[in-house]
Amino acid sequence: MGREDAGKSPVRGSPRRGRYPRGVTFPVVGMVGGGQLARMTHEAGIPLGIRFKLLSDTPQDSAAQVVSDVVIGDYRDLDTLREFARGCDVITFDHEHVPTEHLRALEADGIPVRPGPDALVHAQDKGVMRAKLDAIGVPCPRHRIVSDPQDVAAFAAEGLPEGAEGDGFPVVLKTVRGGYDGKGVWVVDSVEEAAEPFRAGVPVLAEEKVDFVRELAANVVRSPHGQAVAYPVVESRQVNGVCDTVIAPAPDLDEALALKAEQLALTVAKELDVVGHLAVELFQTRDGRILVNELAMRPHNSGHWTMDGAITSQFANHVRAVLDLPLGDPRPRAKWTVMVNVLGGDYPDMYSAYLHCMARDPQLKIHMYGKDVKPGRKVGHVNTYGDDLDDVLERARHAAGYLRGTITE
Amino acid sequence: MGREDAGKSPVRGSPRRGRYPRGVTFPVVGMVGGGQLARMTHEAGIPLGIRFKLLSDTPQDSAAQVVSDVVIGDYRDLDTLREFARGCDVITFDHEHVPTEHLRALEADGIPVRPGPDALVHAQDKGVMRAKLDAIGVPCPRHRIVSDPQDVAAFAAEGLPEGAEGDGFPVVLKTVRGGYDGKGVWVVDSVEEAAEPFRAGVPVLAEEKVDFVRELAANVVRSPHGQAVAYPVVESRQVNGVCDTVIAPAPDLDEALALKAEQLALTVAKELDVVGHLAVELFQTRDGRILVNELAMRPHNSGHWTMDGAITSQFANHVRAVLDLPLGDPRPRAKWTVMVNVLGGDYPDMYSAYLHCMARDPQLKIHMYGKDVKPGRKVGHVNTYGDDLDDVLERARHAAGYLRGTITE
Repeated sequence: MGREDAGKSPVRGSPRRGRYPRGVTFPVVGMVGGGQLARMTHEAGIPLGIRFKLLSDTPQDSAAQVVSDVVIGDYRDLDTLREFARGCDVITFDHEHVPTEHLRALEADGIPVRPGPDALVHAQDKGVMRAKLDAIGVPCPRHRIVSDPQDVAAFAAEGLPEGAEGDGFPVVLKTVRGGYDGKGVWVVDSVEEAAEPFRAGVPVLAEEKVDFVRELAANVVRSPHGQAVAYPVVESRQVNGVCDTVIAPAPDLDEALALKAEQLALTVAKELDVVGHLAVELFQTRDGRILVNELAMRPHNSGHWTMDGAITSQFANHVRAVLDLPLGDPRPRAKWTVMVNVLGGDYPDMYSAYLHCMARDPQLKIHMYGKDVKPGRKVGHVNTYGDDLDDVLERARHAAGYLRGTITE
Repeated sequence: MGREDAGKSPVRGSPRRGRYPRGVTFPVVGMVGGGQLARMTHEAGIPLGIRFKLLSDTPQDSAAQVVSDVVIGDYRDLDTLREFARGCDVITFDHEHVPTEHLRALEADGIPVRPGPDALVHAQDKGVMRAKLDAIGVPCPRHRIVSDPQDVAAFAAEGLPEGAEGDGFPVVLKTVRGGYDGKGVWVVDSVEEAAEPFRAGVPVLAEEKVDFVRELAANVVRSPHGQAVAYPVVESRQVNGVCDTVIAPAPDLDEALALKAEQLALTVAKELDVVGHLAVELFQTRDGRILVNELAMRPHNSGHWTMDGAITSQFANHVRAVLDLPLGDPRPRAKWTVMVNVLGGDYPDMYSAYLHCMARDPQLKIHMYGKDVKPGRKVGHVNTYGDDLDDVLERARHAAGYLRGTITE
């Protein structure tokens, strides 16, 4: 690994050195997955002078379009992963889908995997995650692994306050693996509706439907030697289960609650031995508590605002963390930063809309992912920042809506 | 070209489309030259969603290390340029060395070349530049094309104030083509010393040695439809003819003089029909005038501070300009931003020094170019920003000095 070797020798022997000038000995970060998170990690890695290697499903993937050193292959195949890892100083991820046993095999080969499999399993398996958070005393919604619809009904009834009427529904059901952006999640109102989630044959987690006032995200970055930094807690607004708007910092958030959320995320990072960026998605309840909704151990949509709104972006800090480099300052550069996702609309070519948005708002920061436009698909995001939250929100929403085609003037 | 086609058809027929998903119709920017300017232009192009194609001398060049779509070839060869240009919507440049006649041939083929040959020749040939600036009334140092050392002596004598003693030396001599970073420039004190510049057989320009208090740079970006934006005027400090430090904005610069410098740069951009980024290097004289030293029609070292210090960087605005997209806001994001170049020192591996700099200053923005470290070679730059200029300067200088090895604690 880079850090340990640094300073010992001016030239590190490595089979990949032929690609680069002789004196350049900066490490190679291998990222598995060719989505927009890898695309933006490469962007952040260029000024850092690191070398970035990508394992991508296809040459058309978002990141594969812009990265020089791309291996096309299937991350579910251990031989492919091993071959890819041979040229890397460290392996990290654009997604959580690499099988845990493959990560263990890479570690056994001596490749640093960051975050490691023992940490990453908590972002891969919601059952494991809930059990661990319970064990370390981190507040979560009431939850239980359930075996069938009757068990769901029992779980629902257990949640009724003593003496209350009713059946305790609605209940949230989640497959423990494979869900994202609202997929693999059901809100069920009755025992009949509870049948669907069990059809995939994957273990199902039942959770109380939390009476939340809003969703927050506490994002932190942690390095192998234990340095950690916390970004300001943000408000995250979802539409149809997909992240729509992120406001940094979360408006009107009680200072003590913000601190509690940051501390909670730092605790989770430490106790789960996370390396890299950790997003802790939170519910802020009507009665003033915070409960953990989900964990993600990679750069995360709730941190895209940092690209234009923080001194060091989540992508730059993720790279620094996985290389065990000192972390960059996570503080905001503006009073308010707003991120709104750009979803695909009905019209496949966004270029003329994009031109219009640039002309309307010269301060707008557009981030396009090079992805095929499909209705509802995340194809980019916009960031705006400034002193007036209403203005900053309006500008971001207008641009995202115009790009999608839902706003036409 | 992208703009003209935008909105007419959701799918633009182009031979390069196989590399990208079907619905993605963003244009291809071809950049000639694989140096750090191309590397940073690619970095800026990623969020814009444009596609970037590079013509590079070798696969090890700074930009070739990080760009996906690279053609290795010689920019002096017209067939190579033509083949490269076939896949591009517009051609732009990392350097000024492409022969003017080749640019005209590409234009005759129907490829937009930005800046075009009629503009670019002013950045390629200092004799043409001086003649044009004279014609449009832009103040320059006294100058004349000289034919031999005796002619230099005559030029020197012409500069003596009436009745003054002496021979009028020193005089600055420049070859009209091929110089950069102090190369191709001589300050001569006598007719004997004036022999050297003529040895290359290239026309030589003589210029008065200006009694300047400091050097400034006025950077502007202009698009084909005539939109233009001006960055704040900066102070540029050279060491041994190489840019060392840039301070944005230039400290203690009289507001009227700053405005005059901006207007001058905008005038040059318009009159020379520049498209893209234009750097106008200026002398601020002891008697309060500004005189044009050099022009560069591409992203420029004096604009590297914009990557972290301006709302829109010079690289993003250069891309937007050559695509005739609306330009981004050039205003500063901080009270002071300082850029210091990182030059190579004696030790070829900068990685451990880099780690130290990150640990010392979590706000530091490091930009490494992936280049082989050689003594005195530009291998990166650092940016710092903040409210206190002394602090911002000290942090940038310390980091650059530590990376070079001239500061060891």
